[in-house]
Amino acid sequence: MAEFDLEAIRTGVLAGQRAWIARAITLVESTNPEHRALASELLTSLGHEAASRTAQGKAPSRRVGITGVPGAGKSTFIDALGSHLVEQGLKVAVLAVDPSSTRTGGSILGDKTRMGRLAASDNAYIRPSPSGGTLGGVARATRECMTVVEAAGFDVVLIETVGVGQSEITVAEMVDTFLMLTVARTGDQLQGIKRGILELVDLVAVNKADGEHLGPARETARELRGALRVLRPEADGWSPKVLMCSSIEGTGIDEVWDAIVEHQESLETSGALTRRRAEQRVEWLNRMLQEQLVSRFYNDPEAKKQLAELSSAVAAGELDPSEAVARLLSGN
Amino acid sequence: MAEFDLEAIRTGVLAGQRAWIARAITLVESTNPEHRALASELLTSLGHEAASRTAQGKAPSRRVGITGVPGAGKSTFIDALGSHLVEQGLKVAVLAVDPSSTRTGGSILGDKTRMGRLAASDNAYIRPSPSGGTLGGVARATRECMTVVEAAGFDVVLIETVGVGQSEITVAEMVDTFLMLTVARTGDQLQGIKRGILELVDLVAVNKADGEHLGPARETARELRGALRVLRPEADGWSPKVLMCSSIEGTGIDEVWDAIVEHQESLETSGALTRRRAEQRVEWLNRMLQEQLVSRFYNDPEAKKQLAELSSAVAAGELDPSEAVARLLSGN
Repeated sequence: MAEFDLEAIRTGVLAGQRAWIARAITLVESTNPEHRALASELLTSLGHEAASRTAQGKAPSRRVGITGVPGAGKSTFIDALGSHLVEQGLKVAVLAVDPSSTRTGGSILGDKTRMGRLAASDNAYIRPSPSGGTLGGVARATRECMTVVEAAGFDVVLIETVGVGQSEITVAEMVDTFLMLTVARTGDQLQGIKRGILELVDLVAVNKADGEHLGPARETARELRGALRVLRPEADGWSPKVLMCSSIEGTGIDEVWDAIVEHQESLETSGALTRRRAEQRVEWLNRMLQEQLVSRFYNDPEAKKQLAELSSAVAAGELDPSEAVARLLSGN
Repeated sequence: MAEFDLEAIRTGVLAGQRAWIARAITLVESTNPEHRALASELLTSLGHEAASRTAQGKAPSRRVGITGVPGAGKSTFIDALGSHLVEQGLKVAVLAVDPSSTRTGGSILGDKTRMGRLAASDNAYIRPSPSGGTLGGVARATRECMTVVEAAGFDVVLIETVGVGQSEITVAEMVDTFLMLTVARTGDQLQGIKRGILELVDLVAVNKADGEHLGPARETARELRGALRVLRPEADGWSPKVLMCSSIEGTGIDEVWDAIVEHQESLETSGALTRRRAEQRVEWLNRMLQEQLVSRFYNDPEAKKQLAELSSAVAAGELDPSEAVARLLSGN
């Protein structure tokens, strides 16, 4: 495989060189089986390196998932937060999980335009969501990109998600801190926030808390605190916090970051951070295993043929689905 | 297998005998592999019989899924609707999909008490949700119970579901008509109705439309009609309807049934009923196949052992999850 020189990629990534990071990400995003084998090898090797750095005292990266209700100004917020971190000397990677995305030249440009300040920094790396495919495929690629940028020395990984279906749960399961961005609402304050989301969040930021919106933002924050008190009892020594910020005015962004750090330090103190990350890795192993058990079967030409025949019989009512399943599995 | 005499069960079910129906349901609800094999054989045989009866002109059963917002009075409604049908000379089976249920003597009694009028009828069969396990397992058992009661000559199958997680989608995928029960609300009328549900319903009934609640019920029905106009364009020649009823006073129940029949006749006329049922069977085949591909692997002693070892290495950060998956699948 001259196409991907693993040792060169590995060395380049560990040296933090952008061209090699991009190459590594191209490799892990590939679905070609030979590329997948190389990617697994690379990821294990990069993971070892990251683990040995941590053992030598380097702090692990901070993994933050960010979701937002429609109109909450997520891109502007990530631009403001990321720029704030870069100014502090931190290296920031922005990844995304958006199963509905179809990446084009235009949308990469779009992502960089949406986060103009951050995109201009040498210490930031913005990668749009892998395109198309299943949520599982998109999430796998993003999770593996995270391993790459962490090995490349990025201190903070921000993973953006769209509020679609299961993508928030998936992102919450790959980060240390899950943050939801919202804005002040009139009428029913919690409208637009999917109930399940509040069960995932560690932090909520009410954005656009500026000018005439400040009062309503305060009211929204108060109501959210009430809702979270009911929905989210303290766990691992942490009760979710609700803050206010304005990406445009740049206010409150530092408080949001401080709360993220506070959350992660509280997880570290209780030992929950290490435990959670280990659990996430095993959970991830199981999810990929299950997906591949299924896709391996469906991609087998013999099984495909038999499935097509038995599906016709089942559709016609000649065979019960349970009997078709028994026959499909008996031959395999 | 003297334990289950397939031929006796088959004959008894086709003759509509309750003791044999109960025996058949015990068999299809079993997760014992030998029982599963027998159950598949029984279901294919019962399915053939039902298909040949349909070919001889017997109308297929009417499959109706019923969900309700909390406090909508679902049990009382099913009791009223079922009793109305029994009075018309129809045989009615009530099944349930509730993955949170744990069946006990008490809860069977509970189910029969909740539907007291119906439970007293010889032409009604009430089966509580199979207990415990995954939604997939509960849904499989309920779907197979449906095949049994249909073969036993039941004209109508009502499948009750609780508004939890995916259970509504699962039930919607096994019925011809999906009905949601709600009640008049003050304030935000659509509160309490999960948005996804409106995308599944064919009919909505506003229950408790009696006495002082009649005005608010009318208002709620009007708002729901507006929401459905936006959310649900006509499909297969049908636009979802919103009706009002009172289970307590017995008003509107016949209109709800007439609308169910109207919906199903419209599906039959357009040919959609046959097509939908065929699609549902194939969809079901695929879902069971995927579940069993996974569970077969996880139940294999060798694979279990290897998975435990590799999981430890992954948890410790010594192995990337993708590499562990590759190793697990290479040996199989």
